[in-house]
Amino acid sequence: MSLRAEIIAIGTELLLGEIVNTNASHIARGLASLGINTYHQQVVGDNPARVKQAFEEAYLHADLVITSGGLGPTEDDLSKEMGAEYFGVSMYLDEKARDHIRNYMTLRGRKIPDNNWKQAYLPEGCIPLYNDNGTAPGFILEKDRKILIMLPGPPSEIVPMFDEQVLPYLRSKSAEVMVSRTLHICGMGESAVEEKLHDEMLIMQNPTLAPYAKEGIVDLRITAKAADEETCSRMIAPVESHIRDIFGNLIFGTDADTLPRVVISLLQERGLHLAVAEAALGGKITDKLVSEKGASRVLKGSLIAYANDAKTGLLGVRPETLEAFGAVSEETAREMARGAASAFSAEIALAETGIAEATDSEKPGGMMCFSVYAFGKTWSKTAYYSRRRNSNREMASSAALGFLREVLIADSFPEKNSF
Amino acid sequence: MSLRAEIIAIGTELLLGEIVNTNASHIARGLASLGINTYHQQVVGDNPARVKQAFEEAYLHADLVITSGGLGPTEDDLSKEMGAEYFGVSMYLDEKARDHIRNYMTLRGRKIPDNNWKQAYLPEGCIPLYNDNGTAPGFILEKDRKILIMLPGPPSEIVPMFDEQVLPYLRSKSAEVMVSRTLHICGMGESAVEEKLHDEMLIMQNPTLAPYAKEGIVDLRITAKAADEETCSRMIAPVESHIRDIFGNLIFGTDADTLPRVVISLLQERGLHLAVAEAALGGKITDKLVSEKGASRVLKGSLIAYANDAKTGLLGVRPETLEAFGAVSEETAREMARGAASAFSAEIALAETGIAEATDSEKPGGMMCFSVYAFGKTWSKTAYYSRRRNSNREMASSAALGFLREVLIADSFPEKNSF
Repeated sequence: MSLRAEIIAIGTELLLGEIVNTNASHIARGLASLGINTYHQQVVGDNPARVKQAFEEAYLHADLVITSGGLGPTEDDLSKEMGAEYFGVSMYLDEKARDHIRNYMTLRGRKIPDNNWKQAYLPEGCIPLYNDNGTAPGFILEKDRKILIMLPGPPSEIVPMFDEQVLPYLRSKSAEVMVSRTLHICGMGESAVEEKLHDEMLIMQNPTLAPYAKEGIVDLRITAKAADEETCSRMIAPVESHIRDIFGNLIFGTDADTLPRVVISLLQERGLHLAVAEAALGGKITDKLVSEKGASRVLKGSLIAYANDAKTGLLGVRPETLEAFGAVSEETAREMARGAASAFSAEIALAETGIAEATDSEKPGGMMCFSVYAFGKTWSKTAYYSRRRNSNREMASSAALGFLREVLIADSFPEKNSF
Repeated sequence: MSLRAEIIAIGTELLLGEIVNTNASHIARGLASLGINTYHQQVVGDNPARVKQAFEEAYLHADLVITSGGLGPTEDDLSKEMGAEYFGVSMYLDEKARDHIRNYMTLRGRKIPDNNWKQAYLPEGCIPLYNDNGTAPGFILEKDRKILIMLPGPPSEIVPMFDEQVLPYLRSKSAEVMVSRTLHICGMGESAVEEKLHDEMLIMQNPTLAPYAKEGIVDLRITAKAADEETCSRMIAPVESHIRDIFGNLIFGTDADTLPRVVISLLQERGLHLAVAEAALGGKITDKLVSEKGASRVLKGSLIAYANDAKTGLLGVRPETLEAFGAVSEETAREMARGAASAFSAEIALAETGIAEATDSEKPGGMMCFSVYAFGKTWSKTAYYSRRRNSNREMASSAALGFLREVLIADSFPEKNSF
């Protein structure tokens, strides 16, 4: 069965631009992962007539319609009723949905407003989708080769309901599966990555290869479509191996790996504790590390030496280094790294000193120097960014972590048994 | 002229869920700010037939259609041509658009691929919208009481083009204006804020009052619609004054004010330099400050004492304090603040010590203690967060800055001439 899907988001706040339609992209991504094609999306307000019209337009081209939102408890929320009407079925009180609502509210010590019971009514003949994260159940309705799936609007409710209940249902409807493998690259810009790929790779049909760039990281996603996962994996393997030949060590991880998590693992494997010294990045490197649960195992702490006197006073950067090379120089970065390692009694330290964006200073805006210190040795590197302040800071914080990884896996890094 | 608008986003990557449709929400917000109603949004792929069909559907209900995307340089990008076809006009080479493309590419030292010139063709009779941030111009086409506005897809191109060129054009078409005023509140949760508002305030029609919560900040937006801005402002004033009576000092700013910017201004006015000490927030407080341009005027630096020995060694927290009260306690926070002020020779310091989420520790996950030190005095506060690690960290970093502001404007804070 090859389904054609359409996504309808229901909500006046979407039409007013008050919220971004992340539900549609979540559903779309899920459908794409199953190889179900979507050719059209709509957004309509909480208005019965317009919701009904949206259904009519959608089923002209699609046989699977998935909606988000419009399942609220108020009298005006009639989207569910419009779905039932379109399919010519009536509504019934679903006892289990009613129990779910009661439990949900009772657990939170809330009184149940009368109109909440309205949410327990569902179209006859549907598969109910109970909601552990809110009061509105969703449902799946199949009739005359058409499928309607209606889901609640809040992302905290729709995401688990879609992932845990809708995707398995749709998977059971599909003859084909899709498998994706993502390789993460740090240390090369998007256009440079694309240039290294052969033209024919970017126009491959199955598997496909797609690059995505975000905050200094380029992802290459390989996606194969076949009868089963094993065949998909067999199709992906040679493409992955070819990409690994091209980019080698620039690939820092796959799929759910993140750069900070990879750095934390490398430090942990080597039994190293890290200190960080930041300047223009103002805590962004440390924040990325601390965002990961494992950070406490390796991170001693950080010193953000925003003012120059903090660089000399707390990190022991020599005034003559600042004088001769400037605050934004690899020489200063090396002394900051050395100073941070010593201040936090850490075996290894990562330092950054830079200018977030163009100022009156003689150094160009977006110039960032990084250094790593470990066991008496230092490594350093300079990079340039040409975007705005916070975009430069975002990219440079990835680059700093990428540089630390580069040093940790380099041949020049001392062997574990040497220290 | 009362326009009815429809937004069509063109892009296969939207249908695949690879990107989120932030363009639609940006455009929708802009239209709402002018009082132009939008009843429907669509998303279609880069496919001429489907783009044309989307136009046909849209103009059944709307007289203003705004598209984003589909203006790329490749042969397949035919959205512009479909727009011209729908309006029955032909395409012409716009010399100025061609010059823009040439300058844009030359400035960046790039060779101009032949197909880029295709982007300089526009529908006859249109108002061209030149693009300073990319190669694809947009345009406005008016005919037979219908308006078509086609804009490029990348947010860095469409946002300035929409704000700087499209909004002024639409404003000139509208008989009414809308004016919004946003009050920012820190230190009270969204539901508590809503409870304090009288029910009738939340159902007012003109002006309207809408609350939005994000990362520990609650915004209250008052929006009035009238013939001119002055009338709008007169309608907004009593509502604002009423809200100020209710929330008083919890309101830290209006409109474009941000909490870090307000804190930076307060410090600057008082001639104070700030040091920060963080633990579980791992740089997030400092990052928020450094994200603002004025940070260098007041921020000395930060110490992120992630490990306990950094709290004692570098911040001078006494081991007996850690022993008696634990790392996550107001007592430890007070000593961290005092230590940070001393380490950075700053007049004032803000400290945080907390647990980002539940662990085996005896202290509850999401417990965060803040302290401010200045001129020999300390202030402190404890807050609890029940979300996930990084959501707690995000909210607590706003709360920490909010606490610093609270102390700075408190009666108990030393007068400027007293120090």
